[in-house]
Amino acid sequence: MAELTFTDKMIEAIKAKRSILNVGLDPQMKFMPPHLIKWAMNTWGTTKKRNGKEVQILTNEGVGRLYWRFNQEIIRAIEPFAISVKPQIAFYEAYGYWGFWAFEETIKYAEGKGLLRITDAKRGDGGDTAQAYADGHLGEVSFPILRDGTLEFESTPSSIKADALTIHAWIGDSCVSPFVAAAKKYGTGIFVVAKTSFNPDSKVEQTATLTGGPMWRTLAAMVEEWGRDTEGKYGYRNVGVVMGATKPDDAPEMKAILPKAWKLIPGYGAQGGGADGAVVVINDDGFGGVVNSSRAVIAAWLKGQFQCEPEKFAKAAALAAEFSRDDLNAALKRAGKMNW
Amino acid sequence: MAELTFTDKMIEAIKAKRSILNVGLDPQMKFMPPHLIKWAMNTWGTTKKRNGKEVQILTNEGVGRLYWRFNQEIIRAIEPFAISVKPQIAFYEAYGYWGFWAFEETIKYAEGKGLLRITDAKRGDGGDTAQAYADGHLGEVSFPILRDGTLEFESTPSSIKADALTIHAWIGDSCVSPFVAAAKKYGTGIFVVAKTSFNPDSKVEQTATLTGGPMWRTLAAMVEEWGRDTEGKYGYRNVGVVMGATKPDDAPEMKAILPKAWKLIPGYGAQGGGADGAVVVINDDGFGGVVNSSRAVIAAWLKGQFQCEPEKFAKAAALAAEFSRDDLNAALKRAGKMNW
Repeated sequence: MAELTFTDKMIEAIKAKRSILNVGLDPQMKFMPPHLIKWAMNTWGTTKKRNGKEVQILTNEGVGRLYWRFNQEIIRAIEPFAISVKPQIAFYEAYGYWGFWAFEETIKYAEGKGLLRITDAKRGDGGDTAQAYADGHLGEVSFPILRDGTLEFESTPSSIKADALTIHAWIGDSCVSPFVAAAKKYGTGIFVVAKTSFNPDSKVEQTATLTGGPMWRTLAAMVEEWGRDTEGKYGYRNVGVVMGATKPDDAPEMKAILPKAWKLIPGYGAQGGGADGAVVVINDDGFGGVVNSSRAVIAAWLKGQFQCEPEKFAKAAALAAEFSRDDLNAALKRAGKMNW
Repeated sequence: MAELTFTDKMIEAIKAKRSILNVGLDPQMKFMPPHLIKWAMNTWGTTKKRNGKEVQILTNEGVGRLYWRFNQEIIRAIEPFAISVKPQIAFYEAYGYWGFWAFEETIKYAEGKGLLRITDAKRGDGGDTAQAYADGHLGEVSFPILRDGTLEFESTPSSIKADALTIHAWIGDSCVSPFVAAAKKYGTGIFVVAKTSFNPDSKVEQTATLTGGPMWRTLAAMVEEWGRDTEGKYGYRNVGVVMGATKPDDAPEMKAILPKAWKLIPGYGAQGGGADGAVVVINDDGFGGVVNSSRAVIAAWLKGQFQCEPEKFAKAAALAAEFSRDDLNAALKRAGKMNW
């Protein structure tokens, strides 16, 4: 196991920055400030005919460059207030490999800025495929080597290696095991999708009643099993769960089943979950989870209390991140959990 | 809805090629023939020191170029015998954006060769994120346009658009809806993970007992709901399921719940499922599913009855694809389903 595991790094970052905030890096075209779009268009625009008239349109490369520049400015702005960033990979891969390029650059850049990186990919598949996801997102991949003309293979940290990954555990136990193995070998974190923040309509999937209670409770019990022997030096486990802030009523039970599993808490901010609800799942020592806010931070310039001219989008993100950090800390204080 | 939907194209391809075979394009370093690795190393290798001695190591770009060349040769070899290809995206994204580049080129190349493309990504997430996955893999993405200096947006087919996509439905109904909407708008297909071929260890997840029976049965009933109004002109639905060939005993029930949903059938070939088991889920008209074989075809040169020198890897893939097609057709005939 690594010197410091994911949860260890989380805990040290919480203490150093006095924050439990994660910023979700979910770039969407509608969030992009026009001046950045025009900047990208100048270099990576191409000319096409529309209704007989020439227009300029951004290429896939241009979108990748645009998202990457946007993320750089956001990362620099929010870095003092957040302990980690969580790129939602869907928004990158929609633009093919140039989108994926922006994701890869973002992962590397955030590390350089001292932010922990949680890749929100919700991957879930079986056998060799799960192994490939674990290798790519959390571990090492195989490269061929020629040594004196002889072909060998060497495992090298992947170019998209993050500190933690979200996964689906639907397919089966052994399909989770490559991720658990990565947690044990590299000290990286995983978050099993247990109760998301998109819950109103998941009556069947996540709250379907099993013989022993709702499905998510069974899953949580499995996460408790999977998480054995993944504790870092501060006693927190590197196999955790996604636990939406929009369902605080279920939080005590989740916490009872998984007292030392780290929780990734989406749903705070734009999805309507309040700070008091978000911190219910945090332990009394003030550790045990990180709270995500995506669009309320990165698209703060567009609406709400930090709305401003598009040129100041990064400043608005900084103000929103600072506000969120303070909002969450005040909730921790009210709950008697500000113990770091 | 498109002129011809995914299931319509499947049916026409089955009739034209007399095959129900899909080839899984799952490149892994261990499947690569040494002469192709050396070819890639010549152009995209770099020099590093290992134990004080210089060695040549392939770059990420080199892996992308290698996988892409491998796939091209495999596609040309298997094209007469298969109706579709299924790239498993995990093996590509493990190598970052250069791996993703190979995936994107593969998707485009297969279309040019007249093969249907099923992207095996098992994506599953909520709200905007599900929308981004649906847009990227099955639909259109937004690009900025400058028309006479005015900024507008235009939706354009994504660069990784495939004919069908595998998804997880765990998170909730509304999170499936962007994919169902794509099926209705573009005629593209989706396969909900219901019963995979990795089942021995999924006692809890997939066969967990709900009040009304095993979990997969509840999910299948939901797929039946989601699939309404996605029929193509031949009456088959474009919202389907993944149904492993390794569990033929459950196939009659799956077929009873989902008579017109298209089935993606993994587990035939290397995973040990036989042809007779694989075709149980096919309807009496000989339609209703496509059977996947991955490594038994693309890595045929390495072991088994078509094992050969690495230089002939594509020929071995062709022989394995031809054998698999005939093996499946013989099983269809034995079951009285060879009715096309």
